Amino acid sequence: MEDKLRNIIASIGPLDADAVEKSARRQDSLAKPPGSLGKLESLSIQIAGITGRVCNKIEKRRVIVLAADNGVYEEGVSSSPQSVTLAQTINLTRGLTGCAVLARHFGSELQVVDVGVNAEVRCEAVLDRKIAFGTKNLYKESAMTREQALKAILTGVELARQAKADGVSIVGVGEMGICNTTTSSAVLASLLRLPALAVTGRGGGITDSMFEKKKTVIDGAIASLRPDPEDPVDVLSKVGGFDLCAMCGVFLGCAEQRIPAVVDGLISITAALCAVRLCGNVKGYLILSHESFEKGYAVAAGELGLSSLFLLDMRLGEGSGCPLAFEVAAAACTVMRDMATFAEAEINDDYLEEIRGKDCFTA
Amino acid sequence: MEDKLRNIIASIGPLDADAVEKSARRQDSLAKPPGSLGKLESLSIQIAGITGRVCNKIEKRRVIVLAADNGVYEEGVSSSPQSVTLAQTINLTRGLTGCAVLARHFGSELQVVDVGVNAEVRCEAVLDRKIAFGTKNLYKESAMTREQALKAILTGVELARQAKADGVSIVGVGEMGICNTTTSSAVLASLLRLPALAVTGRGGGITDSMFEKKKTVIDGAIASLRPDPEDPVDVLSKVGGFDLCAMCGVFLGCAEQRIPAVVDGLISITAALCAVRLCGNVKGYLILSHESFEKGYAVAAGELGLSSLFLLDMRLGEGSGCPLAFEVAAAACTVMRDMATFAEAEINDDYLEEIRGKDCFTA
Repeated sequence: MEDKLRNIIASIGPLDADAVEKSARRQDSLAKPPGSLGKLESLSIQIAGITGRVCNKIEKRRVIVLAADNGVYEEGVSSSPQSVTLAQTINLTRGLTGCAVLARHFGSELQVVDVGVNAEVRCEAVLDRKIAFGTKNLYKESAMTREQALKAILTGVELARQAKADGVSIVGVGEMGICNTTTSSAVLASLLRLPALAVTGRGGGITDSMFEKKKTVIDGAIASLRPDPEDPVDVLSKVGGFDLCAMCGVFLGCAEQRIPAVVDGLISITAALCAVRLCGNVKGYLILSHESFEKGYAVAAGELGLSSLFLLDMRLGEGSGCPLAFEVAAAACTVMRDMATFAEAEINDDYLEEIRGKDCFTA
Repeated sequence: MEDKLRNIIASIGPLDADAVEKSARRQDSLAKPPGSLGKLESLSIQIAGITGRVCNKIEKRRVIVLAADNGVYEEGVSSSPQSVTLAQTINLTRGLTGCAVLARHFGSELQVVDVGVNAEVRCEAVLDRKIAFGTKNLYKESAMTREQALKAILTGVELARQAKADGVSIVGVGEMGICNTTTSSAVLASLLRLPALAVTGRGGGITDSMFEKKKTVIDGAIASLRPDPEDPVDVLSKVGGFDLCAMCGVFLGCAEQRIPAVVDGLISITAALCAVRLCGNVKGYLILSHESFEKGYAVAAGELGLSSLFLLDMRLGEGSGCPLAFEVAAAACTVMRDMATFAEAEINDDYLEEIRGKDCFTA
């Protein structure tokens, strides 16, 4: 599996420089002050670089939600019972959760994948790619084996390849899993060699004492397991989760398949940072949706050098910001395709003459 | 006309407290950590307060673009020729400008209104509500008479009433007019008793010397015309523009008609601040789209105590952020309507029992 991953990484190219240059030139020719459409411009240029075409159309959109449980639950670092992972995994497919409602509202597909829920899911609408029934408790031992981490990453890559095969234009990467803000903060702390304090927030909402415990658990796990910050697979396997691994794989797979990938929230950006650490070229394929309140998010975004599209103060997770981000990306591509160039927009001399001829043009 | 305006102001009520309370309670009952959908929650509650109904659906959406020219153009404070106002006013109706492309993309109506373009527009798709062929040069004299200002404000109110009559669920307020960042900064400086320096940016892009001139013109106009900061109509008539007046009227009219109104960019927020200064209750009806780069925007938003939905670094004007803001508002209302409550989302005991009965539930 190491070889397989190495081959995937080697196959991921940079953005298409020619398409980037041509699309930037087209943006500058559109009838508006240069740069005045801000991120709609940069996004349309980025997507051109991804697909290799100056003009693009975002059609089929898919949010891929990776669901998994985390053994660290037994340390009491979450206010929700672990069974919420199972319940919400199923509710996602029933159209009841925040992300599901938003996906339906905006016409995005929603693919829910079990990569490690600690229960038999028994719901046909959930794709079964279970690696195990939850990870081990990272405060006591490695969350998973290296082989499990690799398997979960490759599972994510396959999901991206399937999206491409299904004709999906843009992918969003979400998750469902109690305690995955703990694993994400642990992965960030490891990768960035920071204390838990610097990257840990309150997740779904926890008490002060749980918050202290959460940081103790993260610092303790890193001190005893000593994940290697230079080896993201080692970090993911020791203090990550199956969801994080598979999400990292989806980001790698999207880059391999040249599909724009939306990063949504703390867990998603942590997985994206792992993917970028595995392969620097992945960064060009990432689009950050909302600016998350979770403390680690800003640290990870800063490390990636990327900024977000919206400010909605969302912290629900699930990939709930993806459907709206798809809309922004689609709008960016439409501007590039449909807006008039200065030449086309000119109420040209003939037109002005015609009006002047009627003696009614006073400008 | 003063009486008419006074009556309108007197008729504008606060948000419906009962609908606000019930909708806030419903948000807290939805299956998510409280507050985790951030502004999607607060927006859905605000819209409930506006319409008086807990559950709402954003259907017909309309961007109203007010077009007008400004006499201060002759001071050389813009890099664009004045004829751009006419050209882009017509191009808006031809679907060629940034706002027009985004409105079509998102299925918003676009109503383009001439309230003072300095030319015969001669385009049937542009609604003719011209007050005059541009304002006077505010650096030399009052931009317009008080009567003209009142007439433009009442024109805006009528446009909002028409939107209501046409079954529009949400209105966005945009503009087209060379030099209207100059008039907006002048209005803000007057209302907030600030020097031009504190509220003036570079608009569509100007040279350093034009930028210095722009500030000199604003400070000079205020020093000589002495608009009364306590009287927004006086401020608008002396250093404003027909677009600003009419936009202020649209905000008043939306509040009167209990329609949510999207504020988009510097000129729009300046008009919104005038409306709020005329009637404090208007504030509850405002939704800020993107965080504009223009210097005065943040000052006005701070004064209003409101924050924006997105971060797209847009500074095109025209109301170009409105169509996307409508999408966010529509999504917020859908979440309120369609998301499951905790009671509905529970994979309830029966369901869990059923699974446990099959001896496969391991959580």
